[in-house]
Amino acid sequence: MTHFRLTPLAQALPDTVPFVGPETQERARCQLFNARLGANENVFGPSPAAASAMADTQMWKYGDPESYDLREALSDHYGILPEMIAVGEGIDGLLGYIVRLMVGPGDTVVTSDGAYPTFNYHVAGYGGVIHKVPYADDFEDIDALFAKAGEVNAKLVYLANPDNPMGTAHKGGDIEAAMKNLPKGTLLVLDEAYIECAPGGTSLPLAMDDPRVIRLRTFSKAYGLAGARVGYAMGAVDLIASFNKVRNHFGMNRAAQAGALAALDDQTWLRTVQARIAASRNRIWTMAVKHGLRPLKSATNFVTIDCKRDAVFAQKVMREMINEGVFIRMPLVAPQNRCIRISCGTPADLDILADVMPIALRAAEKSWR
Amino acid sequence: MTHFRLTPLAQALPDTVPFVGPETQERARCQLFNARLGANENVFGPSPAAASAMADTQMWKYGDPESYDLREALSDHYGILPEMIAVGEGIDGLLGYIVRLMVGPGDTVVTSDGAYPTFNYHVAGYGGVIHKVPYADDFEDIDALFAKAGEVNAKLVYLANPDNPMGTAHKGGDIEAAMKNLPKGTLLVLDEAYIECAPGGTSLPLAMDDPRVIRLRTFSKAYGLAGARVGYAMGAVDLIASFNKVRNHFGMNRAAQAGALAALDDQTWLRTVQARIAASRNRIWTMAVKHGLRPLKSATNFVTIDCKRDAVFAQKVMREMINEGVFIRMPLVAPQNRCIRISCGTPADLDILADVMPIALRAAEKSWR
Repeated sequence: MTHFRLTPLAQALPDTVPFVGPETQERARCQLFNARLGANENVFGPSPAAASAMADTQMWKYGDPESYDLREALSDHYGILPEMIAVGEGIDGLLGYIVRLMVGPGDTVVTSDGAYPTFNYHVAGYGGVIHKVPYADDFEDIDALFAKAGEVNAKLVYLANPDNPMGTAHKGGDIEAAMKNLPKGTLLVLDEAYIECAPGGTSLPLAMDDPRVIRLRTFSKAYGLAGARVGYAMGAVDLIASFNKVRNHFGMNRAAQAGALAALDDQTWLRTVQARIAASRNRIWTMAVKHGLRPLKSATNFVTIDCKRDAVFAQKVMREMINEGVFIRMPLVAPQNRCIRISCGTPADLDILADVMPIALRAAEKSWR
Repeated sequence: MTHFRLTPLAQALPDTVPFVGPETQERARCQLFNARLGANENVFGPSPAAASAMADTQMWKYGDPESYDLREALSDHYGILPEMIAVGEGIDGLLGYIVRLMVGPGDTVVTSDGAYPTFNYHVAGYGGVIHKVPYADDFEDIDALFAKAGEVNAKLVYLANPDNPMGTAHKGGDIEAAMKNLPKGTLLVLDEAYIECAPGGTSLPLAMDDPRVIRLRTFSKAYGLAGARVGYAMGAVDLIASFNKVRNHFGMNRAAQAGALAALDDQTWLRTVQARIAASRNRIWTMAVKHGLRPLKSATNFVTIDCKRDAVFAQKVMREMINEGVFIRMPLVAPQNRCIRISCGTPADLDILADVMPIALRAAEKSWR
């Protein structure tokens, strides 16, 4: 509570830091993590060309407010108009802009119960009303999402495909088919952050400027540039143009623009990383099975693992792993919170994980009973 | 105009890019500038330690959402609590957060007519009402600003000290004295972006957590990191905490945090840069005088030059300089728009400027008469 003259909306918002980073936990533990497998970062890192491009950037210059070169390159990459692409400060930043453009006090949105919390953070921040539908067997329930959207006259419906935190994915064709039931006035916010980690056919097979959907992609995951904060939205030209109404025009770091450009250009590196992610995913899977757990099929750079007990048990497993120096996270909402979530790591990271997992499971088992 | 269901506020905002960067002009000219002296960037660049720190950053990791290390270092630097400091995506980003926190539809703010346009952009973006007072002899008119704030019950009053685009500065003590007339319910947003370029005594001599003011500073100017997007706000603990209500928690580039930390640590480099800025300022001054113009006394890293004719003439001078490959800008509002604004440059930049200035003046003279 403050005596400053905040808007009534701002006055009512919590001023806690809603998203606890691994560094915060390291400071609390007074010890660094031995393996950082909790934030779905890409330990295999960006293309060396991206690293060089960033290091070579003249940082005394402001970044190009139009992100022209990057938007041109993305335009070539996808074979779409640059006017169909908006670049922003990560998908988090772009979600904030979309919500600000569309959601005012009392406006409704729909998402899955336990889906990406940053979307909800932005909606609450602009006074919107969030309706949630449950997951169905650890998948986001497209039909239920769209039905609820109709019911509450939602302006936005959020769908991550592949999903975070569960790692599951729908076929793009199935989403397309379900879209016949997307209400006319509802915009589908399709978060495809993990699309480069997913099998072919996961991407929505619709024109990028289909006015029913806005797609969000990022350089934070498969491209290995989480620290750079470069995301992009693709959609109808007039929708994309509306970002210019509200965005922080000089908000894009100059080196980040150059790094993303170089990363996009190095598709060979991307393929190498995709193979490493797949290998890491398999090893985490095997490890989980070996210890009697049930890993979920993942279309991302992480594996969500059903610990086959309740939320208390999963939390104990997570806590024990963190105590043992391995940073992981877990879904926050029932029934998904019977799981833990482990990001792909280097072979060395997974050696550590292999040592720690049985220790954590034994300790959790003991204190849970 | 779009058929998407934007909020009525967003629907009414223009979707043009309001801030044209030098790259946009270069693309329009199909030619790079020979000297980039228009955006008040710091051509002398950041500390080499900052460049190394950025290059050494592991960019696959997200940045610390608390910017803990940087806030600790700033806390040491100023001898204040870290809880009195918020780090954000440049002053532009921080201005957006302040306005979002305090200004809703119909709320009033006060600024000077022709002062920093990004503040106005944010206020319009949240539906606020902007009241303007004229400059007084090319200085922001503190008494008039505070009087107007009382008259219109302003939530915010914006003051840049030193000022952009005029380069003039008030003594901090004079602002402090004037603050007895700052209305009780008005927060002073004091933009001190150029403070490290200003003479001693320019900084407001009040406790950083004085609840009547929030101060904004940046690594974009004297520290030479415009491309990194690192600004910070200092103010009362509860006001600073309120940024957590709305900010993009993972919005800070990881390398930028490391670069700013290293830059702050290298005060020797800062002093070298300050000396270079002063020398460059003097040379631009002398050059302007030599050509019969009237440079304004500058407390920044640019010199605003009265061309001693009207706005049409100043604009012609600017256009001619741009045509000759020298990127500069000018104030946009009368009577300040009789001036051009030239950022400090390297000796090589100023050699080019020395060649171009008389050519531009002659050409402007010809077509103006």
